[in-house]
Amino acid sequence: MAKKVTKIGVLTSGGDSPGMNAAIRAVVRTGNYYGLEVFGIMRGYSGIIENDIIPMHSRSVANIIQRGGTILKTARCKEFFQPEGRQKAYQNLKKLGIDGLVIIGGDGSFRGADIFSREFDIPCIGLPGTIDKDIAGTDFTIGFDTAVNTAVEAIDKIRDTADAHDRLFIIEVMGRDAGYIALHSGIATGAEHILIPERKTDIEELVESLQEKERRKKLVNMVVVAEGDEFGGANEVAKVVKERLPFTDTRVCILGHIQRGGSPTCLDRLIASRMGYAAVESLLEGRHNVMVGILNNRMHYTLLERAVKSKQKISDEWIKIVKILAS
Amino acid sequence: MAKKVTKIGVLTSGGDSPGMNAAIRAVVRTGNYYGLEVFGIMRGYSGIIENDIIPMHSRSVANIIQRGGTILKTARCKEFFQPEGRQKAYQNLKKLGIDGLVIIGGDGSFRGADIFSREFDIPCIGLPGTIDKDIAGTDFTIGFDTAVNTAVEAIDKIRDTADAHDRLFIIEVMGRDAGYIALHSGIATGAEHILIPERKTDIEELVESLQEKERRKKLVNMVVVAEGDEFGGANEVAKVVKERLPFTDTRVCILGHIQRGGSPTCLDRLIASRMGYAAVESLLEGRHNVMVGILNNRMHYTLLERAVKSKQKISDEWIKIVKILAS
Amino acid sequence: MAKKVTKIGVLTSGGDSPGMNAAIRAVVRTGNYYGLEVFGIMRGYSGIIENDIIPMHSRSVANIIQRGGTILKTARCKEFFQPEGRQKAYQNLKKLGIDGLVIIGGDGSFRGADIFSREFDIPCIGLPGTIDKDIAGTDFTIGFDTAVNTAVEAIDKIRDTADAHDRLFIIEVMGRDAGYIALHSGIATGAEHILIPERKTDIEELVESLQEKERRKKLVNMVVVAEGDEFGGANEVAKVVKERLPFTDTRVCILGHIQRGGSPTCLDRLIASRMGYAAVESLLEGRHNVMVGILNNRMHYTLLERAVKSKQKISDEWIKIVKILAS
Amino acid sequence: MAKKVTKIGVLTSGGDSPGMNAAIRAVVRTGNYYGLEVFGIMRGYSGIIENDIIPMHSRSVANIIQRGGTILKTARCKEFFQPEGRQKAYQNLKKLGIDGLVIIGGDGSFRGADIFSREFDIPCIGLPGTIDKDIAGTDFTIGFDTAVNTAVEAIDKIRDTADAHDRLFIIEVMGRDAGYIALHSGIATGAEHILIPERKTDIEELVESLQEKERRKKLVNMVVVAEGDEFGGANEVAKVVKERLPFTDTRVCILGHIQRGGSPTCLDRLIASRMGYAAVESLLEGRHNVMVGILNNRMHYTLLERAVKSKQKISDEWIKIVKILAS
Repeated sequence: MAKKVTKIGVLTSGGDSPGMNAAIRAVVRTGNYYGLEVFGIMRGYSGIIENDIIPMHSRSVANIIQRGGTILKTARCKEFFQPEGRQKAYQNLKKLGIDGLVIIGGDGSFRGADIFSREFDIPCIGLPGTIDKDIAGTDFTIGFDTAVNTAVEAIDKIRDTADAHDRLFIIEVMGRDAGYIALHSGIATGAEHILIPERKTDIEELVESLQEKERRKKLVNMVVVAEGDEFGGANEVAKVVKERLPFTDTRVCILGHIQRGGSPTCLDRLIASRMGYAAVESLLEGRHNVMVGILNNRMHYTLLERAVKSKQKISDEWIKIVKILAS
Repeated sequence: MAKKVTKIGVLTSGGDSPGMNAAIRAVVRTGNYYGLEVFGIMRGYSGIIENDIIPMHSRSVANIIQRGGTILKTARCKEFFQPEGRQKAYQNLKKLGIDGLVIIGGDGSFRGADIFSREFDIPCIGLPGTIDKDIAGTDFTIGFDTAVNTAVEAIDKIRDTADAHDRLFIIEVMGRDAGYIALHSGIATGAEHILIPERKTDIEELVESLQEKERRKKLVNMVVVAEGDEFGGANEVAKVVKERLPFTDTRVCILGHIQRGGSPTCLDRLIASRMGYAAVESLLEGRHNVMVGILNNRMHYTLLERAVKSKQKISDEWIKIVKILAS
Repeated sequence: MAKKVTKIGVLTSGGDSPGMNAAIRAVVRTGNYYGLEVFGIMRGYSGIIENDIIPMHSRSVANIIQRGGTILKTARCKEFFQPEGRQKAYQNLKKLGIDGLVIIGGDGSFRGADIFSREFDIPCIGLPGTIDKDIAGTDFTIGFDTAVNTAVEAIDKIRDTADAHDRLFIIEVMGRDAGYIALHSGIATGAEHILIPERKTDIEELVESLQEKERRKKLVNMVVVAEGDEFGGANEVAKVVKERLPFTDTRVCILGHIQRGGSPTCLDRLIASRMGYAAVESLLEGRHNVMVGILNNRMHYTLLERAVKSKQKISDEWIKIVKILAS
Repeated sequence: MAKKVTKIGVLTSGGDSPGMNAAIRAVVRTGNYYGLEVFGIMRGYSGIIENDIIPMHSRSVANIIQRGGTILKTARCKEFFQPEGRQKAYQNLKKLGIDGLVIIGGDGSFRGADIFSREFDIPCIGLPGTIDKDIAGTDFTIGFDTAVNTAVEAIDKIRDTADAHDRLFIIEVMGRDAGYIALHSGIATGAEHILIPERKTDIEELVESLQEKERRKKLVNMVVVAEGDEFGGANEVAKVVKERLPFTDTRVCILGHIQRGGSPTCLDRLIASRMGYAAVESLLEGRHNVMVGILNNRMHYTLLERAVKSKQKISDEWIKIVKILAS
């Protein structure tokens, strides 16, 4: 039978993503509702090691559901990947009596939680918080919907000026290992080409297609490139395009960190709330070392060790749709 | 074997919803790609009857994916529900050689299409375009995600001023038969109470809960009410609340038609694009009289006669989450 | 010579407006910079009377410049308009040694400050914080630019759906005594008619003009009405229009309190920052009982007793422009 | 006495800016109102030379007031700066009988108009359309307010993530010769430092100030750099900062072309409408070769030859305010 959890800690770890605050709020209020003490841990695992841990109540999380960023701050913590670091962390938790953790972050953060939990028998529940949407075991990750809408709004603005000048824009969006942001924002903005890490980039095909469009006098074009595309990002692509289409007015835009911030969308607040609630329920039900996800509209629990980065298989149909719709 | 389709018409019917333009664009370009002639029909079924039908090409739908409203305009058409109206419509389609239709609209529009198609053997494909998300056979309807985000942004603004003044706001959102917009926007903005048509409204419970919050000095409160709530909308609710909580500063906001407009979100553009593409594919594959939907991440086809308004079953768990998180 | 100010209080009073937080931040940081102690007073004058006053430092106002509402909350306080209330207020300020006040609010709040200051010799500086932009002595008031942009964004959305359905919308915006929001948002959204308190409303002229447009088949129309228009707001106007244009599909939207909230625009943050800075400088320079304004790009100081509601004179030229551009 | 104008052309030239469509609309409708024929000229001066000129009516400009970009497209046209180019342009205008021009653009475009008008006696009226706000003779240029609000929204998002990670961001905004966008957006977002072309950049002072903030544990910092800052933009600044503050997590964001697009703000639509109206009035009153501007809330006319780029004098007071408020 599961140990009864009484005091839990919540932290955000790794890259931040919009909706983390909604998740924190849900963990704190659900915890309180069930009579648990809830502690906020600052700056990811660093806060456990440095004992930067604060009690949280319903009002600590008032009026944050709509805020970007994370009130607990976040960090990557190398020390926690050393046995001494984890030992120190455990001592601090023990002192406070914290006997359960909720970790909001990505696959790297889950790996840390998994190791820690095996060593010290503190149940850990992971919530997928990453704008990249590349975690196995869930259809949604907290922050993706906001990030992709931010990208779409930015690209819409770029199209206005592209259209006024008959220009070609090479636009880089986030996604080091995953092309979801590029694929979704590219389709949603009518981009002519979308370059993603999941597919080999055929630069020759891209150049020929752009040349063909030039011949047809289709002068406004946008190419959306994921930062992790194997060709090397927007600047590398632009270099080749400028050389091969010397009469085309080609510009580069790198959207960058605006994609990490901003008020979360309705969807991100909703899934963050639901997942935060489910995380506490999971601890109470005695689950441990699982990530809470949503698959096919149902809550789905994946062992932390299996909640790794997942490569999407971009179906050939999507690629065909991109090609048809951008024509 | 299915008749081969060669010329198709596309129309938007009933209440408009953001993303309809993205769907039109997808139908036109996919049709063109497969060598079909595509015609745009103005103002829903009225345009067939009045022969207001225009040929459309790839460039007719350039730069519209990001626009709210519908370039084909929309209307409710009583004449089409009369045999003479449909007869006239058929003659007009026949003259132009249109042998397939794509209807973007709600369940009322599908009913018309179903009858028409049975009478005259013109295959009709429906796409669910409604902000209310209350159509059986699909997890998504075109426009819901945009409408609910518009509601969330508006309610966030209201919270700013509610918080500055310690006020109670009773906010009405759209949804005559369905409470999805109210439920999602209410959770996403941290509303204390959410009143929806799918559940009996216990006004006494609402009043007592607000009184209890007043005692706890929780002075900022928001109640989100679907317009179709049986108690009669925000004004009716406010009447009772003002009487029973005379010392609370209570205000009413009715968000209204802003929820129908605006640039569609990434999700609405995406599903609209995918559904528009699938509608043409469906006609080519010989399907007829089905609505194209997405269920559990897969394309799903529902007979038009069954694509009726569906009452969601709001799970007790969601109601519990609302209560816990708003505490 | 002026008494040297050493401890100052800042408060927000009356209706809230976006940018108040930027002004508070500027007062606190400028005060600190000059070695003053700065206190935040909660809920307007009520906070002085109830001694709800907190010391503020640079970090108390970190990360608020972009937030709507006011972290000090606001209220209308009847007690302060009684001699006993002001006496109590004075005692509380004296106890803390507060010898200067910055009041962010409208003309009602300035009147209170003026009386108080004459009675007790505490210099008061007013900053014009109102979305209505109807204060004499300044071209800008904190919050107007945000409110009018919120109205414009909302009306843009309404136009999308108006256009899809060929509908007439009667839209009510805020402005009990002043038509600035109506005038600016109406011009910016291409409204056909704009009804404001500053001009007599000729309902007959409105009806005839709409009838004429109906004859010309201009079916999409928007009328923007200030809530304080003498005819009685959007609902009253709609009543007449519906009666006189029975075949027109007429709808009403009342934008309401969304116009008070939201993240302030660049302009509102800028003028709030500049005015907050100038308020502290004014106290240090020995000014008292003036409102800080900006006229013709320069700081301008108006005696509080003269910083009353000002009726704009809407030039005939603007009315002519509205008529020409909406044609 | 002035020749009577009967047919006028309108064009947008140089870099595009949000609000140009509102200005085109105002020119067309005001022209129509006064019985003038109005022609739209495509792609700036190129359209005159290539005879790409289309008649415009009230409905040609319906529903564009809210759109970014320019429906007439824009370009820089070298040929127009050659006598042969202008000769050809004149012939094309003469053929159509166009006897007046409205040019919406920047100082380079005005220079072309000035030369052309002297050679061929066609009165030209300039409207200041540039996001940089650096034209002598006007307090406002069409597009600045939108661009700076776009920058502010983007930087707000960056602050969310900066704050979550305790990072330093070096953010580059547009402004090759002018620092207005940097100055306004920097103040409005609470940036610690603002580097602009109008002032010598003291990199040593910047580094020391950042080091001092590091010592005070103020870990979240933002530096806003105009692209035309003499130090060479954000990347160059970041190079030095990373070298000198090796323990600070420093990131670069270049906002780029998103600042040129998007739906114009209320202010930009308003001044564009007013200026477009005034341009036609000016032609009718016999003015020629002036730029229409707004100075101290009044229309102001500047000879095109004097409507050059103007360096703002950034007052020492603003620099002081920046320093105080960012503390």
